[in-house]
Amino acid sequence: MNELGKIEPDWIAVDWGTTHLRAWAMSNEGEVLESATSEAGMSKLSTGAFESALMNIISGWLADGEITPVVSCGMVGSRQGWIEAPYRVAPCEPIDHSPLTRAQTTDSRIEFYVVPGIKQTSPADVMRGEETQIAGLLAQEPDFDGVVCLPGTHTKWVRISAGEVVHFSTYLTGELFSLLSSKSVLRHSIAQNGWDAIAFKAAIDDAITKPSTIAARLFLLRSEALISDLSPETARARLSGYLIGLELGAARQYWLGQNVVIIGDEKISGAYYSAISAQGWAPKKYEAQLMTLAGISSAYLKIR
Amino acid sequence: MNELGKIEPDWIAVDWGTTHLRAWAMSNEGEVLESATSEAGMSKLSTGAFESALMNIISGWLADGEITPVVSCGMVGSRQGWIEAPYRVAPCEPIDHSPLTRAQTTDSRIEFYVVPGIKQTSPADVMRGEETQIAGLLAQEPDFDGVVCLPGTHTKWVRISAGEVVHFSTYLTGELFSLLSSKSVLRHSIAQNGWDAIAFKAAIDDAITKPSTIAARLFLLRSEALISDLSPETARARLSGYLIGLELGAARQYWLGQNVVIIGDEKISGAYYSAISAQGWAPKKYEAQLMTLAGISSAYLKIR
Repeated sequence: MNELGKIEPDWIAVDWGTTHLRAWAMSNEGEVLESATSEAGMSKLSTGAFESALMNIISGWLADGEITPVVSCGMVGSRQGWIEAPYRVAPCEPIDHSPLTRAQTTDSRIEFYVVPGIKQTSPADVMRGEETQIAGLLAQEPDFDGVVCLPGTHTKWVRISAGEVVHFSTYLTGELFSLLSSKSVLRHSIAQNGWDAIAFKAAIDDAITKPSTIAARLFLLRSEALISDLSPETARARLSGYLIGLELGAARQYWLGQNVVIIGDEKISGAYYSAISAQGWAPKKYEAQLMTLAGISSAYLKIR
Repeated sequence: MNELGKIEPDWIAVDWGTTHLRAWAMSNEGEVLESATSEAGMSKLSTGAFESALMNIISGWLADGEITPVVSCGMVGSRQGWIEAPYRVAPCEPIDHSPLTRAQTTDSRIEFYVVPGIKQTSPADVMRGEETQIAGLLAQEPDFDGVVCLPGTHTKWVRISAGEVVHFSTYLTGELFSLLSSKSVLRHSIAQNGWDAIAFKAAIDDAITKPSTIAARLFLLRSEALISDLSPETARARLSGYLIGLELGAARQYWLGQNVVIIGDEKISGAYYSAISAQGWAPKKYEAQLMTLAGISSAYLKIR
């Protein structure tokens, strides 16, 4: 902080996803001096609007006559983002020695860099942002060998070995839950909050052991509400259990007999933790934002 | 038709669902004199708005000083509709000797009746409208013994025996397809029209034989579009195949070894026909509106 009380970060870390923008003012020693967030996610911005959306939240941290590096990850590097950062191809390190992608800026006080995502050719799959969280995990646990589950709108299961992303698989589970609970006929029967842990575990079991029956169980959440007073909280837990259970069944090769780590927000990580541990596994949990920041910090070392 | 060229129906048939309102001016001999439709479905109307929405399309058919019976089916009889027509309980005839539910009207030129829906207590399930289409089928084929598949937003499979609805099961397949293809991240990769029959059949097979893997295949429709140029038409057919295939797997007890009839609109019936016949069954198809009208005509006989 200078004599006017203004902070003077050495660099700025940015997590720029589909729906949110988060920035951290960082010192070279890894200290977070300040942070800021906005709703200006990639999906809300046209190509020319990215720089001003960023400046809205970081300009107070910039000093005239100095260049502050900004290192970002996430959908900002997609074709619909600020600048397309070409995918690297798995198997590869989550962040490797290839250069970061740089976007041109009109404001000369920053240099803006994007961490590239990773693609897999067969089966086809892509990630943007998760590679940075995995790099954050490996910065803390360099010898980690196992599977990372990153639950969210599009949950990813990622096999890590010898410091590399070996292969991965993406599930629409979070988006399906959101669409079914808020846009489908089930919305009339499903609480926005509340939980029923017993119903959740039973639904997980049903979906893992009898996946072929789940299509018949979804409408039950509506009809049981209509004719047998199913509670909206139980309906919420059952819907979540059916969808996460279908995912666990399809992703079985990722978690069965593996060393599993969950990286996510506390709420969604808790549901996955309870689902996986009910299968007899005890995953470790890491907080998503901490891993993101640790990963962006690794990327910053490449341009420092 | 009278001397002024105005039609004079003996009664009016109405199909009033969640999204549409359809009316037919009928003679006692079963002739359709005229028909009218509007977008005033149940979901767009508040309680007091039903009568005027109906009058908007039928008032030209009414004669002063005469009472024209109006017989309707569908969601108009739900709790959110014009008047709640209490469910009958399966097993029962699709339309039986219990009275139709009558709504009060301010206009004395009509008497408005609703065909009640059917509920099943275990597993919980409900129908409103499909019972009328099934009554229409039985009016044409009184000895029908087998299974009726009624594809749509909420597809129903109904076991019919000895003239009764024995049991049934509802699937969200149509609504899931609509949400995933127009509201999820997959919308970027899925055509609004177009088809790929080979991809559809392969997807059906995958979903029936390996239901546990389908959760992992949905995001492929996005990632294959991004990195291996999957065509939007093929993606559309595959999504439809995965979802219908999951339904067929869950509903196997309904169609396997059974005499199956499909009642639906031509487009959706065609997809189900091709999916079921690929499993070695050859269902018969009936057009949905014709069955609806035949069923409402059976109900009209009760009050005539």
